[in-house]
Amino acid sequence: MNRVPGNQLSKEFITELNTTLEKLENDDSCRGVILTSAIDSIFSLGLDSNEMYQKSIESTSAFWRTLQDFWMRLYGSKLAIVAAINGRSPATGCMMAMSCDYRVMSEGPFDIGFSEVTVGLVAPFWFQDVMVKTCGERQTEMAAGLGTLFTPEEALKIGLVDEVVPPCHLISKAREQLLKWLKNPGK
Amino acid sequence: MNRVPGNQLSKEFITELNTTLEKLENDDSCRGVILTSAIDSIFSLGLDSNEMYQKSIESTSAFWRTLQDFWMRLYGSKLAIVAAINGRSPATGCMMAMSCDYRVMSEGPFDIGFSEVTVGLVAPFWFQDVMVKTCGERQTEMAAGLGTLFTPEEALKIGLVDEVVPPCHLISKAREQLLKWLKNPGK
Amino acid sequence: MNRVPGNQLSKEFITELNTTLEKLENDDSCRGVILTSAIDSIFSLGLDSNEMYQKSIESTSAFWRTLQDFWMRLYGSKLAIVAAINGRSPATGCMMAMSCDYRVMSEGPFDIGFSEVTVGLVAPFWFQDVMVKTCGERQTEMAAGLGTLFTPEEALKIGLVDEVVPPCHLISKAREQLLKWLKNPGK
Repeated sequence: MNRVPGNQLSKEFITELNTTLEKLENDDSCRGVILTSAIDSIFSLGLDSNEMYQKSIESTSAFWRTLQDFWMRLYGSKLAIVAAINGRSPATGCMMAMSCDYRVMSEGPFDIGFSEVTVGLVAPFWFQDVMVKTCGERQTEMAAGLGTLFTPEEALKIGLVDEVVPPCHLISKAREQLLKWLKNPGK
Repeated sequence: MNRVPGNQLSKEFITELNTTLEKLENDDSCRGVILTSAIDSIFSLGLDSNEMYQKSIESTSAFWRTLQDFWMRLYGSKLAIVAAINGRSPATGCMMAMSCDYRVMSEGPFDIGFSEVTVGLVAPFWFQDVMVKTCGERQTEMAAGLGTLFTPEEALKIGLVDEVVPPCHLISKAREQLLKWLKNPGK
Repeated sequence: MNRVPGNQLSKEFITELNTTLEKLENDDSCRGVILTSAIDSIFSLGLDSNEMYQKSIESTSAFWRTLQDFWMRLYGSKLAIVAAINGRSPATGCMMAMSCDYRVMSEGPFDIGFSEVTVGLVAPFWFQDVMVKTCGERQTEMAAGLGTLFTPEEALKIGLVDEVVPPCHLISKAREQLLKWLKNPGK
């Protein structure tokens, strides 16, 4: 991902991600993907709030459908997908990472979690469901209820990420894991 | 709670707790509650067995309905509720604590857990469901199947309580947590 | 279990296990069982692949029904059943162990887990469900998705087994646990 300033998920950017993933799925030479960001210290800051603030019902609905379409493709993808979380990953940034098969995160002053409630929003139930699958019921209840943003080490402790490594090893570790997921015979 | 000798939950006491909670929910100046006991070394010893032993079907049904009404209010409350578990908390005492948003427990020779099976009863399925949400499937299977009563440290380890502190810090820690739950914008 | 070479689960062997368990359930003097193997370093190597390779649909269906019948009896048994895992326990060997009430495993160069995917098979959804109940969603997703075989220590860490002990203490520890499950008043 490389959409300045913070990989905010606008309708246009989500559509681009969805199309790219679809192409990779249809490319027989591709069996795995590393999802990461080219922006220093930021994986993704989540939804682009311009898409939801003072918009019409129609516009908001269309935006939401675009997000759900992308999420269903990402979560249900036949490709092995490893998130290499190189920086901040709040709200829908966290959701994208959780929808991958494995998560490696950089050490550093980065936060990850469902912060929606701190700005008066509630993380949608399907966001919460994905967190339950990742961290269990109780951690989700607390994390989503309090809007906690976790450090990489805290995220590792509750199972929100699978591994925390120095930034210089992020991509090599992600690749190493991806190879593990690709090792078994495919369909 | 302050019903000698051990905050046993009689129909009358449960009704009183339910009414108090309802009043607090209707009081706009109240957004959070600390549930604790004024009785030394006892949070609650659970259901008052007098309500169930050699009683008519009608009487037992009415008692059970009273319990369920209270539980639904407690578990589903819009208030933030922190349990400050100052002592023993077996059976329905444990259930009450688990139905709060957060649990702080005193260090000390106190036990907490679903002990029903040790006297030949089975913890009702909705008790078990709440434990699953708190501790996960496997811990619940063992704890409810064996009727295990946990020390505060053991309870912390399996996630049955969230924090264990010296008795002198119990209320201040509970208050600290409550403020965390109240920090985010309400409806 | 004592079916050389590796307690492979043929239709005949599964039927024998099922019948034995049924007899024990109908024997009022029996309330608990320890499931273990007489074969050195092997608990069970799982399904007998001869039953599934190049067989007719009818034959495979009958085999599968036999397996499900046994599993339902084992998992739902009114007896307390402790698995004393004395050696290797891949695939359906792991499934049998997980279907008991408690698992003690021997230290040693033994592996346990759902390895199906490494040979191009997928662990059936009811296998996966039992692992979710034992280890939670995320561990199951990874373990079944990657076909991971765990050492006893790794299995303990993710909750796949409950205890790891030196081989010489395996049966005494299993018996000790069984007594815990039998301590409470039965029906």
